Amino acid sequence: MKQLFSLLFVFAFGFTQAQTVSSPSGKIALSFQLTSSGQPTYSVNYKTKSVVVSSDLGIKLKDKPALNANFEIQTSKNNTFNETWKPVLGEQTTIVNHYNELVVSLVQKNTNVKLNLVFRAFDEGVAFRYDFPKQNELNYFVISDEETQFNLTENNKVFWLPGDFDSNEYEYNETKFSDIDNSKINMNNGIGVKSIPGKYTVQTPLMMKSPSGLYVNIFEAAVVNYPVMHLKADVSSYKLKSELVPNAIGDKAYLQTPCVSPWRTIMISDDARDIVASKMILNLNEPSKLEDTSWIKPMKYVGIWWEMHVGNSTWDYAGSQNATTDFGTKLASSGRHGATTANTKRYIDFAAKHGFDGVLVEGWNEGWEDWSGNWKEEVFDFVTPYPDFDIAAISAYAKAKNVKMIMHHETSGSVANYERRLDRAFENMVKYNYPAVKTGYVGKIIPRGEMHDGQTMVNHFAHVVKRAADYKLMVNSHESSHPTGLGRTYPNYVAAEAARGNEFNAWSIGNPPMHETILPFTRQLGGPMDYTPGIFEIKMSHYDKKKKEQVQTTLAKQLALYVTMYSPIQMAADLPENYEKYSDAFQFIKDVAIDWDESRYLQAEPGDYLTIARKAKGKQSWFLGAITDENPRNTEIKLDFLSKGKKYKAIIYEDAKDADWKMNPKAYSIRTVIVTNSSKIKLNLAPGGGTAISFEPIN
Amino acid sequence: MKQLFSLLFVFAFGFTQAQTVSSPSGKIALSFQLTSSGQPTYSVNYKTKSVVVSSDLGIKLKDKPALNANFEIQTSKNNTFNETWKPVLGEQTTIVNHYNELVVSLVQKNTNVKLNLVFRAFDEGVAFRYDFPKQNELNYFVISDEETQFNLTENNKVFWLPGDFDSNEYEYNETKFSDIDNSKINMNNGIGVKSIPGKYTVQTPLMMKSPSGLYVNIFEAAVVNYPVMHLKADVSSYKLKSELVPNAIGDKAYLQTPCVSPWRTIMISDDARDIVASKMILNLNEPSKLEDTSWIKPMKYVGIWWEMHVGNSTWDYAGSQNATTDFGTKLASSGRHGATTANTKRYIDFAAKHGFDGVLVEGWNEGWEDWSGNWKEEVFDFVTPYPDFDIAAISAYAKAKNVKMIMHHETSGSVANYERRLDRAFENMVKYNYPAVKTGYVGKIIPRGEMHDGQTMVNHFAHVVKRAADYKLMVNSHESSHPTGLGRTYPNYVAAEAARGNEFNAWSIGNPPMHETILPFTRQLGGPMDYTPGIFEIKMSHYDKKKKEQVQTTLAKQLALYVTMYSPIQMAADLPENYEKYSDAFQFIKDVAIDWDESRYLQAEPGDYLTIARKAKGKQSWFLGAITDENPRNTEIKLDFLSKGKKYKAIIYEDAKDADWKMNPKAYSIRTVIVTNSSKIKLNLAPGGGTAISFEPIN
Repeated sequence: MKQLFSLLFVFAFGFTQAQTVSSPSGKIALSFQLTSSGQPTYSVNYKTKSVVVSSDLGIKLKDKPALNANFEIQTSKNNTFNETWKPVLGEQTTIVNHYNELVVSLVQKNTNVKLNLVFRAFDEGVAFRYDFPKQNELNYFVISDEETQFNLTENNKVFWLPGDFDSNEYEYNETKFSDIDNSKINMNNGIGVKSIPGKYTVQTPLMMKSPSGLYVNIFEAAVVNYPVMHLKADVSSYKLKSELVPNAIGDKAYLQTPCVSPWRTIMISDDARDIVASKMILNLNEPSKLEDTSWIKPMKYVGIWWEMHVGNSTWDYAGSQNATTDFGTKLASSGRHGATTANTKRYIDFAAKHGFDGVLVEGWNEGWEDWSGNWKEEVFDFVTPYPDFDIAAISAYAKAKNVKMIMHHETSGSVANYERRLDRAFENMVKYNYPAVKTGYVGKIIPRGEMHDGQTMVNHFAHVVKRAADYKLMVNSHESSHPTGLGRTYPNYVAAEAARGNEFNAWSIGNPPMHETILPFTRQLGGPMDYTPGIFEIKMSHYDKKKKEQVQTTLAKQLALYVTMYSPIQMAADLPENYEKYSDAFQFIKDVAIDWDESRYLQAEPGDYLTIARKAKGKQSWFLGAITDENPRNTEIKLDFLSKGKKYKAIIYEDAKDADWKMNPKAYSIRTVIVTNSSKIKLNLAPGGGTAISFEPIN
Repeated sequence: MKQLFSLLFVFAFGFTQAQTVSSPSGKIALSFQLTSSGQPTYSVNYKTKSVVVSSDLGIKLKDKPALNANFEIQTSKNNTFNETWKPVLGEQTTIVNHYNELVVSLVQKNTNVKLNLVFRAFDEGVAFRYDFPKQNELNYFVISDEETQFNLTENNKVFWLPGDFDSNEYEYNETKFSDIDNSKINMNNGIGVKSIPGKYTVQTPLMMKSPSGLYVNIFEAAVVNYPVMHLKADVSSYKLKSELVPNAIGDKAYLQTPCVSPWRTIMISDDARDIVASKMILNLNEPSKLEDTSWIKPMKYVGIWWEMHVGNSTWDYAGSQNATTDFGTKLASSGRHGATTANTKRYIDFAAKHGFDGVLVEGWNEGWEDWSGNWKEEVFDFVTPYPDFDIAAISAYAKAKNVKMIMHHETSGSVANYERRLDRAFENMVKYNYPAVKTGYVGKIIPRGEMHDGQTMVNHFAHVVKRAADYKLMVNSHESSHPTGLGRTYPNYVAAEAARGNEFNAWSIGNPPMHETILPFTRQLGGPMDYTPGIFEIKMSHYDKKKKEQVQTTLAKQLALYVTMYSPIQMAADLPENYEKYSDAFQFIKDVAIDWDESRYLQAEPGDYLTIARKAKGKQSWFLGAITDENPRNTEIKLDFLSKGKKYKAIIYEDAKDADWKMNPKAYSIRTVIVTNSSKIKLNLAPGGGTAISFEPIN
């Protein structure tokens, strides 16, 4: 009977006006409509406001007629879906996935090609994708262009990055939509490989705020076997159009039916907290394909890493960037190599003493003598340690100290080389008991002509995660394309960098104070970011008087980032000696959880501030992080998230009165108060500052 | 004192006229000279005849000044080299490597870049290469063009293939140099992927014969980390210029000093036998890098292969070329699948009964339902057998019968997929006791934009051979770039196809009768060819009355090919039932050796005829093969290669009187005579015919 009703519905409405789907709350509505030429279009309203006006949908194919006109509707179906699922690691124990769906099945009159458009309306936004069913009329095909439009109506404020096909490590530009212009940004920003296709191409997630105060975010979810979508802005008309990343010969995607495009997402809310809190991107990904996930564990870690960034030691062994990798090196040590057995044991001791789960060591393996900037295919073999890095002894030492080692695989962009060595690299990890790997892709991609955001690389990053799962290994990818929720499907994909991390503060113009207030509205929608917070020695002049670079926050804000920047694999990035010097502040890093039962987004404004409270998984303790941009911020928060009737010891790590990210970044104070869920706490954030609080129940 | 003499020599002659180097015999001389603009040039004489007149040497670099002018000579050295080495498998037990060498060290005045030119003169030809020493002035560099010229003097007869960057599976064109023209050849030739860059580009080895009867062959040796060189012909002036195969973005080669180009070779003789007999290409390669070669064994084999070519069965299981690979297939069997357990056991039984070493099975693994022509990345996984192929049972059965299985890895050109699965594929071979693999590369290459003959693919083929050596596996590559002697360096690279094989006779315009008389002068100079001879049911009408295709030889010539077409891994390609039908002729295939102590090249004329006698390795038996083109041939040979004082039973497998490749190809006769080394034997070869003889000592 249901079937019959569906058919009647189609008959009655299939060739008439718009098909619509509304969010469960009814606040957001999407309409689908064919134009008179049979071009699919859609529009989106928020309450009574038109947010996206009639925007084209269409795909151009290589050597085949374009799928952008001559369509007619065959059927149209509305569904509702509501489930609750549990992420393996996450910001909350359970996630609700509730949406209404509209599936419009089209057929192209001149070709008989069938194309479905699938629209989903969630309470915080809409999503849609192209669905190519299996059919005789379309089997293998090549996408030469996707013509999805997002036609906005106002000159929004936009937080944008240039639409670089090779890098997402830019600082954010905060301008009006009409002022988007890649030619005006400072390119002396420390990024090695840049491939910007034009003046007006920007990246997603694209976070915007309308003049009337509506928050709009355009992104994508479940980018699988498809290139990353950038957006080309028409700055005069506030229109955006998809710009897919091409491969070496200009094609965008090679597909075979049945298949689907990624989801194109538009989040809309008049409360910015709905955007940071959203799990829509995760919900749009497939459930976990891993049956056993017991081996996937959160990790707080230290590592031999920041000491290279500040210039205390080097990744390479020979102290030369102009020698040739020889495997079984005959080069002489410079004496400045960071990844020595002795130094690694020092970090293991430190980790064991302070309760860290893991130790990352970069520069452990041969190849760093000519790794960077040479577009060289065979730089690293991922298994040969430098002669001063006794991997067997280190593995045994770490095991005895109950510390896990974190592997590092820098590929220098040579994916061809990494893929052919991947099984051996992972076998080596299993052999030496490394449960997680940090991957790196600094450099132009090999196969030459491919770019970080193309279909080939999207598939590569997924391939590494899947192969890692075969060996029960966790992956934390750096310089990868932006995650779009694949961590739901492969929970061993625990984190990625894929944005401008803390490291840029050590040797470039750095990350301005607003940077960390934007990332949770953008990059982190797709999955956890390994931002590497926790830098206490803020100014690089500490290491070298001549240096002017600095981390552009206060010390207290570095602590707050452990709460505001969610990641289940979270580094305490500074040097052990610096933590020992500020051991009272360090206590927060030792205490803070990295996996959560529950998260409360208390205050949020992209580019300005963010306050989040989270409850540690399986415990009664809560942690709060509050951060601000370059402006000081005084506010008061209610502690009503705490359990009723419980008393908590709140240790408040805050900026000292005269603290300032630039002038006086290390001035912090720590106070302890007893609170309940009816208490309030005043937060006083310095310019570029923050507050971190731990709440431990005392009864 | 020698050192001093060298220096004096340089001082006296370094800046004067030509530097020269002559072959040990003195017949061939090469001269090197800088032009007035500092461009390196060379010329070659044979006896008193000028064969190559002043020809440019030069390399164009990407983003750097070209290395083709402004040079001056720093030093110039002459050396002599003479060694004897033993190939693991081969046409002879020992190979003499004797040459005189001239090394000219140049420096470019405007850049200070140092470049060495290394010239070697052998008795049968000359070779030279570019040698880029390690230097501050040149570290990483990209070759955008090689400008090596081969300026000939006459309108030679040329045996040429179009200079296709993706295929060497063409039939030969025999024309005057002035008539080279790719636009005139029949492209309906059964080749799937074609990439011909222009009308006048031809492949090497390029075999020529001058009007005065001089044989000239241009080729290359030791193509390692460099693309294949094709040749662009100036048909009016008889000039040839190197044309390197580009990568996806048009670059030719990515190199780092110290490094060398492949050798460019010019063989010259007034006796064609010197060309087929030459080991110059092998000699120009590095000695074996494998210490233990005990596991490298010759293999005579049968296989489930020709039955698919003739249409009796299929590679795929489901009988569809439009289904999707699903791994753990849920498709239904068509009932026409060749690689079944039962059929494989039948071949194993046949191999065991007739003394064959191995059985090849193609179509054993999932993927053949959509393998071809779709430029699909993930077609095969190289480990998942079809449900009707019980690999464990087959492996055990073969072992019990003392027969080795030969693995088949068709990549469909998706090298990216093969490389990432290679370790697992080889582990699977070790698990199931397969000592050798036949690889295949039918299709457009992935990474997309790469071609079969580019640097990426040259490196891939070498990578597979090296990885295979890690597992003690032998490699026989099909649809690879042409071998250039790498089998000396990696003796487990036992054979390749890399030319138009016998298979084309089953379903295309085929290989004309002269084809096999040319291959030993061309393709086989670089290494053994897996031509798959031994077809007894010559005409495809045997299988399907409608078919007009046929093998374009007589049956007797198919036998002779086992001697004329050297390969240590040699197939008896026809069906078991056909061999049982002609069991007397089959006896030659059972008897013939495939590894040799000694080879005698008795008669040779490219495009016309070839007669070779070889002594079985470690035995007293000899085998002789004589083949002709479309013309009948009556000749007499002396048996003075046989051991003095010994009597031999000679079994002569020859064309019957009325045999003719087209009209009556299966007419053969067998006679036995007793001979000594003073005997003569008359050979009577039918049009497209041949004679095969086994000589077994009887005292």
